Amino acid sequence: MPAGLWITFEGGDGSGKTTQAALLEDWLRDQGRTVVRTREPGGTDVGNLVRDIVLHHRGDVAPRAEALLYAADRAHHVATLVRPALARGEVVIQDRYLDSSVAYQGAGRVLDAGEIRELSLWATEGALPDVTVLLDLDPASARRRLDAADKPFDRLEAEKAEFHERVRAAFLGLAAAEPDRFLVLDASLPVEHLAAAVRARVALALG
Amino acid sequence: MPAGLWITFEGGDGSGKTTQAALLEDWLRDQGRTVVRTREPGGTDVGNLVRDIVLHHRGDVAPRAEALLYAADRAHHVATLVRPALARGEVVIQDRYLDSSVAYQGAGRVLDAGEIRELSLWATEGALPDVTVLLDLDPASARRRLDAADKPFDRLEAEKAEFHERVRAAFLGLAAAEPDRFLVLDASLPVEHLAAAVRARVALALG
Repeated sequence: MPAGLWITFEGGDGSGKTTQAALLEDWLRDQGRTVVRTREPGGTDVGNLVRDIVLHHRGDVAPRAEALLYAADRAHHVATLVRPALARGEVVIQDRYLDSSVAYQGAGRVLDAGEIRELSLWATEGALPDVTVLLDLDPASARRRLDAADKPFDRLEAEKAEFHERVRAAFLGLAAAEPDRFLVLDASLPVEHLAAAVRARVALALG
Repeated sequence: MPAGLWITFEGGDGSGKTTQAALLEDWLRDQGRTVVRTREPGGTDVGNLVRDIVLHHRGDVAPRAEALLYAADRAHHVATLVRPALARGEVVIQDRYLDSSVAYQGAGRVLDAGEIRELSLWATEGALPDVTVLLDLDPASARRRLDAADKPFDRLEAEKAEFHERVRAAFLGLAAAEPDRFLVLDASLPVEHLAAAVRARVALALG
């Protein structure tokens, strides 16, 4: 049985995470691997209930409540979906994980980034991905992509531009602190160029 | 403006918390006080969404996810309802608070009681009630009361008897550790006798 591998994609909305995750999934399936595609918040039945609260609740959610809801989603997701899949030797490709919480809630809002990280690590008993791909894009470009897609905005997307600048800086800071886990890519590059870089890094991790 | 006062009721299901909270509310209103009756989980719009997940979700919720959901409910409840009411000089009467989390999740399940307490205190920035009334009752008597009431059981009520024994012991241990905050009452005593004891303790706290 092959060893499991856990890959997360991080970056702002509009940075191309979904496209890259899909291309990586196709390639891994071509290699004969069993792949689980998942996301946070969401990814499980409990997680989708939590996702509805944090992303679509009308009216404010207290900042610490929001952080705890993301952590609850994460605890259930890792315990019931991610760990069992890795134990079966599968590859888990995940849209957003604790780096998003640290970047969005910690750096972007009023809470301490270190406390947010500790909360996530308590939630998951210290689970960290093997590879994290950060798709880095300046917020103005991301905004233009989202406008072109004409999707309705959720609560986080509607926050103002300065917030997204702080989030971007936070992601880059996290990547700099853990160079072995992170692959940072310029998300303005062509899709196929990015996909090749992701495949190279994942191939290395697969050994 | 009078000072606010925060009173929580703790104890197993069937111990008479709702009855005693209602009697205390009536008495306080007769004294001319403004009273907010509330509960955890629940008590706010966000809290009721969380309550639905933790009490009524079909299928397992991972233990750390459950603890984080209770903490999320608590964070939102304290920040948006309890603290503002206390700041207006009102009396908050609350059914269950962090002692329930520590007793049910910490002592009753697989998580560390100290960690559960720390999680609650992080969620609420250290908020503790002025008075906590523990209605102590042996689980067999509580079971008979609930059977007589013929209510459908929620997930926690359906756990087995040994669990409720551990929860009772945990509550008594918490009360012993904080004698100034806790009033421990034998919940098998007559309703009016208990109500008088609660009133005496609250009158003292009101000064």
